[in-house]
Amino acid sequence: MKFFIQKDRLIEAVSDVLKAVASRTTIPILVGIKIDTTDEGVYLTGSDSDISIKSFIPREEEDTEIVEIVEKGSIVLHARFFSEVVRKLPESIVEVSVEDQFKTVIRSGNAEFIIHGLDAEEYPRLPQINQENSFTMPTDLLKNVIKQTVFAVSTSETRPILTGVHWTFENNELIAVATDSHRLALKKATLQTSLEQDQSFSIVIPGKSLTELTKVLDDNQEPVEIIVTENQILFKAKNLLFYSRLLEGKYPDTSKLIPTDSKTTTKLNSKEFLEAVDRASLLAREGKNNVIKFAILENDIIEISSYTPEIGKVVEKVKSLAVEGEDIKISFSAKYMMDALRAIDATDITIYFTGSMRPFILKSDSDDTILQLILPVRTF
Amino acid sequence: MKFFIQKDRLIEAVSDVLKAVASRTTIPILVGIKIDTTDEGVYLTGSDSDISIKSFIPREEEDTEIVEIVEKGSIVLHARFFSEVVRKLPESIVEVSVEDQFKTVIRSGNAEFIIHGLDAEEYPRLPQINQENSFTMPTDLLKNVIKQTVFAVSTSETRPILTGVHWTFENNELIAVATDSHRLALKKATLQTSLEQDQSFSIVIPGKSLTELTKVLDDNQEPVEIIVTENQILFKAKNLLFYSRLLEGKYPDTSKLIPTDSKTTTKLNSKEFLEAVDRASLLAREGKNNVIKFAILENDIIEISSYTPEIGKVVEKVKSLAVEGEDIKISFSAKYMMDALRAIDATDITIYFTGSMRPFILKSDSDDTILQLILPVRTF
Repeated sequence: MKFFIQKDRLIEAVSDVLKAVASRTTIPILVGIKIDTTDEGVYLTGSDSDISIKSFIPREEEDTEIVEIVEKGSIVLHARFFSEVVRKLPESIVEVSVEDQFKTVIRSGNAEFIIHGLDAEEYPRLPQINQENSFTMPTDLLKNVIKQTVFAVSTSETRPILTGVHWTFENNELIAVATDSHRLALKKATLQTSLEQDQSFSIVIPGKSLTELTKVLDDNQEPVEIIVTENQILFKAKNLLFYSRLLEGKYPDTSKLIPTDSKTTTKLNSKEFLEAVDRASLLAREGKNNVIKFAILENDIIEISSYTPEIGKVVEKVKSLAVEGEDIKISFSAKYMMDALRAIDATDITIYFTGSMRPFILKSDSDDTILQLILPVRTF
Repeated sequence: MKFFIQKDRLIEAVSDVLKAVASRTTIPILVGIKIDTTDEGVYLTGSDSDISIKSFIPREEEDTEIVEIVEKGSIVLHARFFSEVVRKLPESIVEVSVEDQFKTVIRSGNAEFIIHGLDAEEYPRLPQINQENSFTMPTDLLKNVIKQTVFAVSTSETRPILTGVHWTFENNELIAVATDSHRLALKKATLQTSLEQDQSFSIVIPGKSLTELTKVLDDNQEPVEIIVTENQILFKAKNLLFYSRLLEGKYPDTSKLIPTDSKTTTKLNSKEFLEAVDRASLLAREGKNNVIKFAILENDIIEISSYTPEIGKVVEKVKSLAVEGEDIKISFSAKYMMDALRAIDATDITIYFTGSMRPFILKSDSDDTILQLILPVRTF
């Protein structure tokens, strides 16, 4: 194998596939990045066996040569080390050539690295994925669906299924739900699809996979093709394939958790409310549980407060834009509230309470595709 | 005590004194920041007993009111918590008032924090410093003297005196020397002084103190007054006092370590050489000891190389701007070389060798106030 490549493009592709490479692995060859050169260009692959990322660098793009393939072939090189070497090379063109015994020479300007590679034949094959059932989503919508839900997955392995985000697809509508059993995030999106009208699926994607996916996707509106099989999901973006295994098991039915009526509603300016919660959280955090109190006072005034005996207390009043229904005093995790407000990311939000010991929901008046639910904490 | 203050100025001053506050301390009150208000303005003090920083916020500056003192007094507030609270306050003006039992109210806009303070009488007094023996230095020169030497102090407590930088002052010349016994950094500066012509001193300042000092000093040419006593040094900048204890013990005589003749000299472009050493270091680091080889070949070519059996090797050639004297092959720590090159910070540097097992020195042709020395490692 021998090729010349533009350094910047190589750095970018290595940085993408590196996100799938685990620092510790039970399969030794997975500390490496696989490089394949074909008539089309150069493919790089990284994997930790849960996630696999394959990045493609074409021979040319917009009439500019990016790669010159001298000899086709494959090699596996130590991922972290290769990444550091490539970043520090002196010139804008890099030569990579494999000699006997997988010995690989990396040259750029006057610098020459000779590193021991591994046999690409030993590298695990990527999952075979049947492309029939697929749908597409614009990249920015996909990233939003992920960002507005993934933070709510459970970080505990007590119920492994809750470490994933539940995606259901029916009648061209995707619904993503994540919950750690103390709060829940839900986001809907209407999609184009090649699935037949009555086809549907229900899968659970590991939260970690989705977080890594958002890091490798660019910020644009280009379509991402999503292909679902029984135990794998594949995201196909321009020059990038992202595979993740799916979680096995039945996701709990969350639809019953979400209250449909409310006894109290209050509309708030998100930024003002978020900042007040953030300040109350400074004190609540010191008391370890990060719980703050929320009360509706006269004249549509909301009082946010927190008290920690060793440190002191904080009280802050925020004017509500509108209050309807019964008075309420309720306590909840400041962190969950801040996560929910950041996820909704709207100018104003409305909170729907159904009692101080019942879950409450947050919505934006201007966007009905997102809903956040938080369980209160008993303190009042 | 009660005062109103501009939030930005309070944040800045808190951030400065916080650098002296240790997260863990054997003297409980030192987790706090002391606040004193006088007719002149507000003083903040932080200390870990090795370093103390006192910051001053005047009542007014350039005809703008910064502080309004309603009632003079003192209090000690938990440093980290107070810092976080101040940063997150909503409005540009902050009110601080102490009520009974050291209970302190911090108000800004609709936010009100009531936190438990501590008795300022319990806070240790700052060292009393006799101001007779002092000299001044422009801030930027002081920061340079520190940055060009402090990285070379020892990080090991085996010989505690080597964790400091040795400052000697004689005939209006300051000489700063740091060594960890594997390399040495030396910087000279000519100063104005109020010391008498024949006065001199020799002190050892903890490296950690100097590193913190560079962080709190602004980048400007304002004079810093430096006052030395038997066991303390005080740096006086505008609105800032920085105290550090001095290290006790005799600093080794380093003058004999520095070779005065050389058998080989080579002049190199610093940036090109630094980048080549950095690349060789990628591989050398994997071999744990970070040692690279340096050889002068024919036609003024310098070869930099490193070999680690498990990973591979790297070889790079750099054109020297001039070579004089005998050929040489020598090995040294890539880290020490990079530190030295960054400290000298000149376009070109000259290396003076006196044999492959002897210390060698680096200098800039354009700046004779700085010298870096490195001990080689036996490998060739």
